[in-house]
Amino acid sequence: MSDPVSVEVPGTDPGRLTAQLRFVLEVDRLKSVTRRNLLVDGSRRENSAEHSWYLALAARVFAEYAPAGTDVDRVTEMLLIHDVVEVDAGDTFIYGAGEQLHSQQDRERAAADRIFALLPEEQALRARTVWDEFEARETPEARFARAIDRMAPMLANAATDGGTWTEYNVSKDQVLEKVTIIAEGSPQLGEYARGLIEDAAAKGYFAES
Amino acid sequence: MSDPVSVEVPGTDPGRLTAQLRFVLEVDRLKSVTRRNLLVDGSRRENSAEHSWYLALAARVFAEYAPAGTDVDRVTEMLLIHDVVEVDAGDTFIYGAGEQLHSQQDRERAAADRIFALLPEEQALRARTVWDEFEARETPEARFARAIDRMAPMLANAATDGGTWTEYNVSKDQVLEKVTIIAEGSPQLGEYARGLIEDAAAKGYFAES
Repeated sequence: MSDPVSVEVPGTDPGRLTAQLRFVLEVDRLKSVTRRNLLVDGSRRENSAEHSWYLALAARVFAEYAPAGTDVDRVTEMLLIHDVVEVDAGDTFIYGAGEQLHSQQDRERAAADRIFALLPEEQALRARTVWDEFEARETPEARFARAIDRMAPMLANAATDGGTWTEYNVSKDQVLEKVTIIAEGSPQLGEYARGLIEDAAAKGYFAES
Repeated sequence: MSDPVSVEVPGTDPGRLTAQLRFVLEVDRLKSVTRRNLLVDGSRRENSAEHSWYLALAARVFAEYAPAGTDVDRVTEMLLIHDVVEVDAGDTFIYGAGEQLHSQQDRERAAADRIFALLPEEQALRARTVWDEFEARETPEARFARAIDRMAPMLANAATDGGTWTEYNVSKDQVLEKVTIIAEGSPQLGEYARGLIEDAAAKGYFAES
């Protein structure tokens, strides 16, 4: 871990500023966590940092499809930190092998325990609360954030002749299962995703189930 | 430009949804715009999409060093879109040649005209207003966003034995000039940056001016 340069800044608690700097230096590593899906232009795989930016921006663009009263700023905050645990736990492919999926929750919780605790106490608590909310998927904000998180890779797959669907022999039924999560966050985006999958099926992007 | 798959979604304006999809597919290209500065671990140069994520997150972590009353959600929104124009205009190195710096404003305005106009009209207007505010650097939100934008590469340079300062023979005076922008957004972060630069100078990271 990079140790921040220590500077005495009048009017600030030096331990507090150092803790905040240590956190931001540490989460920089998210830029080196590679996901399976490709960029929209197909040139390479996406990393989890740029993915987080993309989701936060997309959530704002598609905000009108969230249920009335959804707090889009909270959705944004959630999406900015939702993948930070991958700094320790790595990315888990949603169509991956069962064993990796089963251990995902434990690995990510251990990562959350360590990484958020780098922050000053009340900021650590807030970050953990936001992350737990995202994981629990019980509030409209968490459901909408998860919908966007599920939808973005579908857009990339559709734009890259099937992308990871084709590469990993994913079936249409497997993808349709994921649409439930989109529809629970946003009925309209769920409808769009269903149509996108029908289009992809017609183009032959899916494996036989 | 990738054309979005068209799906009829009950209760939505199809032209509107298509416009929003076209915008998000287009700005995906920001992941392929390379900046000069390195990641904190020195492994490669940063791209503008992951940089935008990093700034939005850092702005929230350092929010207490913004002047009282600063709207951090607006700062976040600003940082999420501030570099989107680089999809057309590319990244401009702040210690680069004069000619590139001089043409930067024109290139970025032309890019803003094209890219934000992909969105439905009132969303395009809002995005452009937010981007113009960031550029004008007159509100506390824009000044704080710019402070974070200037500070992050300094943290990366300090963590990578001088990084682009050393690589491009940047002098201490050149870097100190940029601190004004940090101090105008946040006196405390400005102080920190000054101390960071003194530390870097003592370590011999700067060229003779």
